[in-house]
Amino acid sequence: MNPADKPEDAATARLLVTCPDQPGIISAVSTFLYNHGANITDLDQHSSDHQDGTFFLRLEFQTPGLDCSHEALENNFRNRVANRYGMQWHISYAADKKRMAVLVSRHDHVIMDLLWRVSRGDLPAVIPMVISNHDDLRGEVERFGIPYHHIPVTRDNKEEAEAQALELLEGQVDVIVLARYMQILSPTFVARHPHRIINIHHSFLPAFVGANPYQQAHDRGVKLIGATSHYVTEDLDQGPIIEQNVQRVSHRHSAAELRGLGQDVERQVMLRAVRWHLEDRVIVDGNKTVVFVK
Amino acid sequence: MNPADKPEDAATARLLVTCPDQPGIISAVSTFLYNHGANITDLDQHSSDHQDGTFFLRLEFQTPGLDCSHEALENNFRNRVANRYGMQWHISYAADKKRMAVLVSRHDHVIMDLLWRVSRGDLPAVIPMVISNHDDLRGEVERFGIPYHHIPVTRDNKEEAEAQALELLEGQVDVIVLARYMQILSPTFVARHPHRIINIHHSFLPAFVGANPYQQAHDRGVKLIGATSHYVTEDLDQGPIIEQNVQRVSHRHSAAELRGLGQDVERQVMLRAVRWHLEDRVIVDGNKTVVFVK
Amino acid sequence: MNPADKPEDAATARLLVTCPDQPGIISAVSTFLYNHGANITDLDQHSSDHQDGTFFLRLEFQTPGLDCSHEALENNFRNRVANRYGMQWHISYAADKKRMAVLVSRHDHVIMDLLWRVSRGDLPAVIPMVISNHDDLRGEVERFGIPYHHIPVTRDNKEEAEAQALELLEGQVDVIVLARYMQILSPTFVARHPHRIINIHHSFLPAFVGANPYQQAHDRGVKLIGATSHYVTEDLDQGPIIEQNVQRVSHRHSAAELRGLGQDVERQVMLRAVRWHLEDRVIVDGNKTVVFVK
Amino acid sequence: MNPADKPEDAATARLLVTCPDQPGIISAVSTFLYNHGANITDLDQHSSDHQDGTFFLRLEFQTPGLDCSHEALENNFRNRVANRYGMQWHISYAADKKRMAVLVSRHDHVIMDLLWRVSRGDLPAVIPMVISNHDDLRGEVERFGIPYHHIPVTRDNKEEAEAQALELLEGQVDVIVLARYMQILSPTFVARHPHRIINIHHSFLPAFVGANPYQQAHDRGVKLIGATSHYVTEDLDQGPIIEQNVQRVSHRHSAAELRGLGQDVERQVMLRAVRWHLEDRVIVDGNKTVVFVK
Repeated sequence: MNPADKPEDAATARLLVTCPDQPGIISAVSTFLYNHGANITDLDQHSSDHQDGTFFLRLEFQTPGLDCSHEALENNFRNRVANRYGMQWHISYAADKKRMAVLVSRHDHVIMDLLWRVSRGDLPAVIPMVISNHDDLRGEVERFGIPYHHIPVTRDNKEEAEAQALELLEGQVDVIVLARYMQILSPTFVARHPHRIINIHHSFLPAFVGANPYQQAHDRGVKLIGATSHYVTEDLDQGPIIEQNVQRVSHRHSAAELRGLGQDVERQVMLRAVRWHLEDRVIVDGNKTVVFVK
Repeated sequence: MNPADKPEDAATARLLVTCPDQPGIISAVSTFLYNHGANITDLDQHSSDHQDGTFFLRLEFQTPGLDCSHEALENNFRNRVANRYGMQWHISYAADKKRMAVLVSRHDHVIMDLLWRVSRGDLPAVIPMVISNHDDLRGEVERFGIPYHHIPVTRDNKEEAEAQALELLEGQVDVIVLARYMQILSPTFVARHPHRIINIHHSFLPAFVGANPYQQAHDRGVKLIGATSHYVTEDLDQGPIIEQNVQRVSHRHSAAELRGLGQDVERQVMLRAVRWHLEDRVIVDGNKTVVFVK
Repeated sequence: MNPADKPEDAATARLLVTCPDQPGIISAVSTFLYNHGANITDLDQHSSDHQDGTFFLRLEFQTPGLDCSHEALENNFRNRVANRYGMQWHISYAADKKRMAVLVSRHDHVIMDLLWRVSRGDLPAVIPMVISNHDDLRGEVERFGIPYHHIPVTRDNKEEAEAQALELLEGQVDVIVLARYMQILSPTFVARHPHRIINIHHSFLPAFVGANPYQQAHDRGVKLIGATSHYVTEDLDQGPIIEQNVQRVSHRHSAAELRGLGQDVERQVMLRAVRWHLEDRVIVDGNKTVVFVK
Repeated sequence: MNPADKPEDAATARLLVTCPDQPGIISAVSTFLYNHGANITDLDQHSSDHQDGTFFLRLEFQTPGLDCSHEALENNFRNRVANRYGMQWHISYAADKKRMAVLVSRHDHVIMDLLWRVSRGDLPAVIPMVISNHDDLRGEVERFGIPYHHIPVTRDNKEEAEAQALELLEGQVDVIVLARYMQILSPTFVARHPHRIINIHHSFLPAFVGANPYQQAHDRGVKLIGATSHYVTEDLDQGPIIEQNVQRVSHRHSAAELRGLGQDVERQVMLRAVRWHLEDRVIVDGNKTVVFVK
């Protein structure tokens, strides 16, 4: 069952707020919404520091009793609340599923899980396109009725290939998932989609940064392997971490087996990161994240 | 380091609220506090159902800017907010550590961890007394400077023994922890401390209720064993669950080894349940709990 | 990559042994194999009790240096070792992938993971058929090139339907997986495939046996939900447990959400149980299992 | 209950073997023991590679039926088996508990757990001495009847202080545990106790090597913190890893709280590493370990 297909979800809105902390914010926001007939059904907040900290808020409210249009609500919120407190803010509506592009190379273990879960309504998203630098997964993807764009990347055409991808994505997507996309995105590309590109790194960052982490882990004889999902920034593997998890391993596992076990962790970690992003549970705080988990 | 010894904690208050859900509660509570100069630094809430559900709230606020005494604040809250919404509510102050009595029989693995953590300031409590139906642990307990009361319980003096314990406890404690206390408390005893007695049950409720659960678990060939911490009600082992955890086991473990592994889980689960209770993170909802975990 | 496709696996054989424990068994078995040119590459054993216990052995050996045929090796083992120690035993060869039938009703979350993993070589099996009492999943299954048999089951034709399924399965399969098959198998059916039918039970055995376990778990306010995979015996849900796992939940999860989280645990637990069975890692010991995990 | 106090343990011996892999080793060892009346009750083995790999063996056997003295058994094993296969090997007897020295600075969370478990028989060891560069924990340690040696370490006396410690330890201990000992041991010191010094690192190595890992983890916004126990070698924090574990954290935790949570993980990880070492379950393989876990 698709959560976004549940009757109550048709009417659910979510407000995300980041602003300098000061007394009175919750009172101001909740009173504003109450006065407009919005019923708050979930509220989570965080302050990075009680003194001179940053305040983060996620709030779910129901819209059926609203006394005005979405547009009017947002305008009023801007004028009467947001500007006063210097807020960065955003309201989204569960009925408007996020558009999620998937970039992939040849590994299918992450993308297949995402496509399958979106198709059965387990992830609240639509997938307008898959872009790949290989043609291998075309059949698998098109079977779900999703357009598949093959944009080969070579040493020479990298800039041009990125431009082609950016053009396809322009205005069409709310979030981009790198489901084991083995090309490094240029700063130009990343700057066009700030905090909207989610990557899965096959390692428990910051350990084993870089290539071949499973071999590195095997050589070091670690007892746990992990995976890290993070937003992509200009610094490779250094963006804000959304989710991590680990799997116990032993001396009996070869580097190849670590990879196999690691892929299941990657898939699981990516799924949680994507789900939280789609449900507006993640707010970026500098190079960290605030994640309001259910 | 004792969290309650941190400077900021001297000024931290916590409000717990349970009431029928309706729009406007958060606005009313947060505006009330703001108007009295209280700075909200943490807020967590839950609604059991958006329609005709029950609303639960935990709120931390800082008291240095209060424009009135604690007593006046509480009176005003009762008159202006709580009564209007039909609230059950309570305000506690981190500076007033809860008084925690410990009842124990002979197993020391749970009580020693609690005593040790309280003594080093890791658990925000004071322990005014330990009561036991055996004298075995007197030395261990008194070493911490805590009075030890030995009240033997036999088949014949059970009622009398409980009366003696109740008299010792009367007005002296905020919470009672059964750290492997092997006597069943009478309904009379329980009724005097509703939702204030915390028990740890070895094994995984509701599986293997009753005697010798590790032998039962061994005979059944389970792959996980667990422990459950719950508030004590009249129904043995059936009170509201606060916390549970499990430990992986295999065919290699004897029933005795399951018990050893289980004791570590019991200790860990009990610690979390007690900590959450001491930090006012648990609200009882019928036969369930709402636990606002950090 | 399919582990059974690895060059070394073409030559891997596995010996499983159960017998009354007595000194000298390992010496006898290992010397026998050594003398025949078999190279032991893995050995795991267990004794239920040092006195009058049962001895369990799993042994992997490489066959390239064998001085005789598989058939001769097995005959010699029977005559020279197995009979002397009263062994139940079995030798299987990694190159001969097990034939695994899947029985399913309408839930696709378990079966799809199995089909997908077999198809990409992550599980060493072939699937000769899927049998279902509904026609819903035909398309999904046939896409993998696997025959799909729809055998409707009603109150009146149960016996007949089972007979039809048994006939299809007769001699065609090594293991039967109930991937959320919502019909209770008769003792007759079970007796034909002893310790070869694997079921996944939602929720945590022996808690919440029976219908609607997630609602039961929700009503009880548990903090963990789980899944159990076990061999099917005549006693419903009471067969030898192969694997169990749990997932942390909270008061925020509805019964429907518990089901969603539970399905991921079911899938994960089933996968491990099936994998271990296919790799000859599970030996049944009365109503328990010995699982020689990597 | 002390496992080593169990009647059967009085008679348990353990053989550890490392040697170049070749066919016939298990047959040779098990037949040797069988012929001497030793009853093998547990056997675990590992080969780093089927071709030109290293073979590792851990074997438990019962000694009551031995046809010769321990000394004769060991001599015969050396002459008839070990030399033939080029084995590094060692036989230990559960009745001879290992002597474990503890080095500590001021943090008591790890050492107290060790002392408490040894005193109640949960860890099979005797503790002949505690050495500290501070005097803070003297009372806590002496209460267990264990000699406490205060050897202050300054910038100037480091060499001398180490010499003093080495003299105390010389011939008195089988293993040295650094229970949060905040001094870096010199190569000279380490060389005197190769693979016999166990350290707990307050981090999930190889992430956050070095000082103040909890602050590093907080700054990086990780979602898991961990601890690593390893043998000490000349390379700081780079020795063979014995055990690791992690704890989930969130944006709500301050660096100080990460430290508090981390200390519980440190304690747990150290306990497992020490237990496995005491039970002869760990074999060092270059810069990795083979751990034969129960």
